[in-house]
Amino acid sequence: MSRDDPDPTELATVTELAKRRGFYFQTAEAYGGVGGFFTYGPQGAALKRNVEDAWRDRFVTRAGHMEVSAPDVMPEPVFEASGHLDGFDDMIVECPDCDASHRADHLVEDDSEYEDAEALGLDRVADLLGDLDLTCPECGASLADEPVEEFNLMFETDIGPGSAQSGYLRPETAQGIFAEFPRLKQYAREQLPFGVAQIGAAYRNEIAPRRGLVRVRAFTQAELEHFVHPEKDDPPLDAVADVELPLYSATAQEGDGSVETKTVREAVDDGTIESPWIAYYLGVARDWYAAIGVDMDRFRYRQHLSGERAHYAADCWDAETEVDGDWIEVTGFAYRSDYDLANHAAHSEESFTVFEQYDEPKTVERASVDPDMATLGPEYGGAAGDIADALERLAERDPDAFDAETVAVDADGETYAVDAEVANFSVEAVTKAGEHVTPHVVEPSFGIGRLFYTVLAHSHREDEVDGEARTYLELPAELAPTFACVAPLVTDAPLVERAEAVREELRAAGFAVDYDDSGSIGRRYRRQDEVGTPVCVTIDHETVEQSDHDAATVTLRDRDTTAQARVPVPDLVEHLTALRAGTDFADLLDREGVHEV
Amino acid sequence: MSRDDPDPTELATVTELAKRRGFYFQTAEAYGGVGGFFTYGPQGAALKRNVEDAWRDRFVTRAGHMEVSAPDVMPEPVFEASGHLDGFDDMIVECPDCDASHRADHLVEDDSEYEDAEALGLDRVADLLGDLDLTCPECGASLADEPVEEFNLMFETDIGPGSAQSGYLRPETAQGIFAEFPRLKQYAREQLPFGVAQIGAAYRNEIAPRRGLVRVRAFTQAELEHFVHPEKDDPPLDAVADVELPLYSATAQEGDGSVETKTVREAVDDGTIESPWIAYYLGVARDWYAAIGVDMDRFRYRQHLSGERAHYAADCWDAETEVDGDWIEVTGFAYRSDYDLANHAAHSEESFTVFEQYDEPKTVERASVDPDMATLGPEYGGAAGDIADALERLAERDPDAFDAETVAVDADGETYAVDAEVANFSVEAVTKAGEHVTPHVVEPSFGIGRLFYTVLAHSHREDEVDGEARTYLELPAELAPTFACVAPLVTDAPLVERAEAVREELRAAGFAVDYDDSGSIGRRYRRQDEVGTPVCVTIDHETVEQSDHDAATVTLRDRDTTAQARVPVPDLVEHLTALRAGTDFADLLDREGVHEV
Repeated sequence: MSRDDPDPTELATVTELAKRRGFYFQTAEAYGGVGGFFTYGPQGAALKRNVEDAWRDRFVTRAGHMEVSAPDVMPEPVFEASGHLDGFDDMIVECPDCDASHRADHLVEDDSEYEDAEALGLDRVADLLGDLDLTCPECGASLADEPVEEFNLMFETDIGPGSAQSGYLRPETAQGIFAEFPRLKQYAREQLPFGVAQIGAAYRNEIAPRRGLVRVRAFTQAELEHFVHPEKDDPPLDAVADVELPLYSATAQEGDGSVETKTVREAVDDGTIESPWIAYYLGVARDWYAAIGVDMDRFRYRQHLSGERAHYAADCWDAETEVDGDWIEVTGFAYRSDYDLANHAAHSEESFTVFEQYDEPKTVERASVDPDMATLGPEYGGAAGDIADALERLAERDPDAFDAETVAVDADGETYAVDAEVANFSVEAVTKAGEHVTPHVVEPSFGIGRLFYTVLAHSHREDEVDGEARTYLELPAELAPTFACVAPLVTDAPLVERAEAVREELRAAGFAVDYDDSGSIGRRYRRQDEVGTPVCVTIDHETVEQSDHDAATVTLRDRDTTAQARVPVPDLVEHLTALRAGTDFADLLDREGVHEV
Repeated sequence: MSRDDPDPTELATVTELAKRRGFYFQTAEAYGGVGGFFTYGPQGAALKRNVEDAWRDRFVTRAGHMEVSAPDVMPEPVFEASGHLDGFDDMIVECPDCDASHRADHLVEDDSEYEDAEALGLDRVADLLGDLDLTCPECGASLADEPVEEFNLMFETDIGPGSAQSGYLRPETAQGIFAEFPRLKQYAREQLPFGVAQIGAAYRNEIAPRRGLVRVRAFTQAELEHFVHPEKDDPPLDAVADVELPLYSATAQEGDGSVETKTVREAVDDGTIESPWIAYYLGVARDWYAAIGVDMDRFRYRQHLSGERAHYAADCWDAETEVDGDWIEVTGFAYRSDYDLANHAAHSEESFTVFEQYDEPKTVERASVDPDMATLGPEYGGAAGDIADALERLAERDPDAFDAETVAVDADGETYAVDAEVANFSVEAVTKAGEHVTPHVVEPSFGIGRLFYTVLAHSHREDEVDGEARTYLELPAELAPTFACVAPLVTDAPLVERAEAVREELRAAGFAVDYDDSGSIGRRYRRQDEVGTPVCVTIDHETVEQSDHDAATVTLRDRDTTAQARVPVPDLVEHLTALRAGTDFADLLDREGVHEV
C-alpha cells in the first residue's frame, strides 16, 4: 500500500514547516494542546480557503448548483433519522490499569492479518484481544479480559436551559442538506436533477486521533448532494469521457493489487464503474485534483470492497493520495440511492419527494374494493375489519387475485379464503397529473483538511540555487496563501516610500500581499519560497532614479525558476492578474514593456 | 429608541421573503425546528459569504493583517483563563408550573423603567419579580417566589472517551486568537503593531432566542484583534480624519438623546471618543457599512454607558442599525487593553508578551540587596528569611528607601526597622537589549448575521413598473448572491442552445449565474429582482438571426432602473466584470458596441 520509495520524513518535514511558518498547529498548545484539534495559521487559513474557493468554483458555480450553510449543531431527531445516533460507533476498549482508551479493532489489525476487524463484530474482536495476547500500548497491561464496546462518535451538547433538548455537532455536513430537502426542492422548483452543496465543519469524537491532519476531531467537508431522477437522469458523460482514471478496483485489491488506468468511457463500458454518475464525478474530480496540485503519480481511485460498502450504497469509490508512504482517503464518491431522503420521510411529517408532472395527464386504472361488511361481520366476527383492510391492500398490490372465486388474504396472522363477490372488486379509470418521486443521491464528499495536507506535501520541493540549498512550495498561483511579496532592496527612505505605495496599490487590487524589508534580499526571497509565494516585487535604486517616475520599473522574481524580469509599475496589476490566472512567468517576457533581467 | 416612522411589517416582510426565496429559514423545520438556529439557503449563503469576503478585503487583505481559522470547540482551560467559565452568564428564572425558562432581567425591563436590570444583581432582580407581580409569559403563573440564577451561556461537550476532557463551543472567535498569541507573535516576527483576524462561528446558548437572526444561538463573527504597543503605536488617523460619524454618546443617552455628527478628527480632538484607535476604526467601518448597503440614515455609533462597559475596556462603542423600529448592535468596538493576554499569561506557562529590542542596548541601573543573614538571623529569628525577601522587593521598587540609616519593611504582617548596612544595598549597571511588552488589543467585532439581516432589510424596495407593483433588492453588485440570470426569450431550440452557451461562458468566468426559461420574460425579471440579481441577459431571435454569429448581441437589463442595452456576446464578460466592480449601468452606454434599447 505504500509507494516504492517512501520518504520517511515527509510527515515530519510538513509538520515542522507548517508549525514554523503558520500553516497549522495543534490548538491551545499553551494549555497542553487538545488531541485531534488543529488551528490553521495565517498561511494555512489562506491556503485552505483557496482550496475551498477552487472547489466552489468547480462544483458549485460552474455546475450551477446551489450552496447552503447550515449550523454545526443539529437537534437529535435529525440524527435519529440519519442513523448516526444508533450506528455511528467505533469499537472501544479501556485499559484496566491506566484507563487509556483504544480502538479495539485497530489493535487487532495491528497484530494480525485482519484488514477490517470492525466487520468481525464486538464479540469476535473481544475474543481476539485474548487470543492474540494484546496489551495496552500505553502501559502494557493485558487487555485479554476487557469488554469491547460501541462508542458513539458524535459530540453531544444541550440546547437551551432546563429540560434541555439534546443536540449534536454534525458528523457530516450532508444531513444539513437532507433534513432541509422539503424546502430546498422548492428553490429548485421541483425540477430534477439539481445539486446542493455545503462547505463546513464536521466533527467526530475519535477515540484516538492521529497522524496530524489525517485523523482529527474537527474537520472541514465540502459535500455535494446531487439529486437525480432514479430512472431518467443521466450524467453529461461526454464532457469527461476521455479523462484517464487510475482505478484500483475491488477485484484488483483481492487479486494482484494492480492499479489500471482507464478512461471514464472505458470504465463505464466494461462495467468497472457500475454507476455512470459516479464515473462522471471521478472524471470531473480527477482534473480538479491535478489543477490544485495533487501529484497524479501519488493518486488513485479505490473501489470499496463489498464488505466495506455502506448497505445503501450501490457503488462507492474513494479518491486516495499517498503521503509519507500512507494512502489517505481524500474524497468519497457514493451512489446513496434514496436512503437518506426515505429515512427522513419516515421520521418526519414532511414530504421528501418531488412531484413530477406528466407532459399530459394520464388515465390509469385503479383497482379498489368495497367489502360487504354485512356478510363479513357475521362470518368472521372481530377479524372482519382487518380482513376488509387486507382486501384493500391486496387490490392495490395484485388486482388479478380477484379473478378467482375465492380470494386468499392474510390478516391477524391467519389466512382467510373470502368469497370474491363479497369484496365488491372494481377497476376504475382515474386521471393522474404526475407522480411523487423520491430522488436518488449522488454524493462526492471531499475532506478539505486532508486535501490541504496532500497539496502541502506534494508541492514541497528542495533544490539548489547559487550553490545554496533551498526549499519551496510549488503551489498553483491561484492557491498560494500570499500571492506577492513587495520588498525595497534596501531600507532607504525613497525606496521604502515607493515600495509602500506599490504594496497599497496591489492590496487595493485584491492581491494578498506581504511586505518585507528585513535582511538581505536573498534571505527574503527564501522566506517567500518556503511558503509558496509565486512572485516577489523588488523596488531598487533604478526604480526611484528613473526620470519618468510614473512609468518606473520594478523587478519581478519567479518562485519556481528564480527567473527575473523588469516590469513598469503601471502594468503591475495587469501582469500579476495574468500570473494568478495561470500565465507562465516565461510568457511574461513576450509582453510589451517587460524585459528579462 | 425607535425611528419616527417605524414600518411594523419590516421583520415580517424580510422573514417571508427570506424563507420563500432561500435566504434563511429555521433549521430542521421538518422536525419542528430548533430555537435560535437558522440555515442559510442558496441565496442567503451566497449573500453572507459576499459580506464576509467584503469584510476580509477591507479588514484583512487591504490592511495587510493575518487571518487564522481555529476550531469551534476549545478546551476548558481556555475559558477558565478568558473568564467565560465564571462570568458568561444570563439571569434565568423558571416557571414553577410550565417549566418554561425566561431571562429574569428582561422580564423586569419589559415591565419597569429599568433599562439594564442585569446591573442590579441577582437578589434585587428576584425581589423585583415579586414587587412587580411578574408572571410567566407562557402560562401566567406567578414568578414572585421563584429563584433567579446564573445560567452559563456556553454549550458544553465532552472531548474524547472515558474520563473525558470538557470542551466548549466558543462564545466568541477572539479566544482562538488570544490563546494562540505565543505562536502568532512569531509569525509577526514580534513586530508591533500587527492584526490577526478570524471569521467563524460562535455560540451562545440563549435562554430565549428571538427576533429571527438578531438573537440566535449559533452565529458568525468577523473579529479583528489589533495588537498595538500601549505607548508607541498610533493609528493612521489621517486616512479617515474627515469621515463623518453619527455619534450617540453616553452623555447624550443620559441627556437629550440626540445623535451628533462629527468627523473622526473632531471627535478625537474634543474627547468624545477617548481612544484614537477606536476613532480610527469607527471611521474605517463607517465607509465600509455604506459600501455594503447599510442605510446611513438608519445607522449610529452608540457609546457604552459606564455601567455597561466591561471592566477592562477603556472605551467602547457599538455600531447600531435600525430595522423594524429596533436598534441592533452589529459591531462592537472595544479597547481591551492587556486584559486578554495578561489573563492567558496568568493561566498558562507561555509568554504572552513581545520582546521589544532597543535600537541600541541600554545600560540601566539595577538596585539589589545582599542581606547579612548572620546578623538578621539572631535578631529576627523565624522572620529573618521573609524580611530578607521583603528587602529584595523593596530594593527593586524603591531604591531610595535605602538612603536612610534604617529601612522600614513589611513582612509577615509586621513592620520591621532594619539597619540599612545589614541590607548590603548596592546599585549596579546592567546592559539590557530590550524589554518584554504585553501588547494592548483594539478589537472591532462584527456580527455577520445581523449585518446580513440589516443589508437585506435596508436594500428592500417596492416600486411600480409598467403599472405593476414590483419588489426588488437594491444590493451592491459585489454582494448580490446571483450576479446574472441568463434567459432565452422563448424556448425555441436555437435560442436555448445559444443561451446555454452564454451561461457556460459566464460561469467559466467565475460569475454566479442563474438560468431561467420558465414563464414570461417579465415574470422571470421579477423573480430575479426579488433576490437582487443586478443583471439579466436575454437571448432573443435577433441574437440567433444576426449574420455575424460570433458577434451577435444580447439584451442586458438593469435591476434598479429596468433600463436595457444591447451588447455583443464577445464583450459580455468585460462589461459584466465592470458592472460587478461598481460601474453604473448608465455608463455602459458610452462604451463601444453598446446600444440603448
